Amino acid sequence: MSSHRFAVNVTPKPGILDPQGRAVEGSLGHLGIEGVSAVRVGRRVELTVEAADGAGARAVVERLAGELLANPLIETYAIESIGGASSTVGAAAGEG
Amino acid sequence: MSSHRFAVNVTPKPGILDPQGRAVEGSLGHLGIEGVSAVRVGRRVELTVEAADGAGARAVVERLAGELLANPLIETYAIESIGGASSTVGAAAGEG
Repeated sequence: MSSHRFAVNVTPKPGILDPQGRAVEGSLGHLGIEGVSAVRVGRRVELTVEAADGAGARAVVERLAGELLANPLIETYAIESIGGASSTVGAAAGEG
Repeated sequence: MSSHRFAVNVTPKPGILDPQGRAVEGSLGHLGIEGVSAVRVGRRVELTVEAADGAGARAVVERLAGELLANPLIETYAIESIGGASSTVGAAAGEG
């Protein structure tokens, strides 16, 4: 058994109304921020899976994503393997 | 001017209560899923920035993340550059 950390990125399907994204876009003017468009707000779920191997762990995450984390009618998801307990995604990370 | 697509991953800080994560963990038994732990639920915001260059675009996203997308008291964020309009993150993507 080994431990695997994953992230599931859930985003609204193209064409599906995204009120949170519209709200962010509506706030940009108040902040004086220009040039930002196509804002989509989704969820990011990070979790640890104990499984015999990586393939088995990913299968558990696939099932969890399809049955619990995403609404297949209006959302899509992407599964991402992240190293250890903290994300190693992207080139730079900012602490908020 | 060029167009840059980013994702901002916002997650609860370590130690901060995450009721959505607890709710997911509480549902695992009903689904018959075992071996999943340390579930953290955050937000993922994808957006397009028009800027002179990549560094300028990232600066806009940094400001947006710190001032609007994340609550610095309880959340951290990581900025990720994603290619084009669709995510190229991770090794595999599932359509929900």
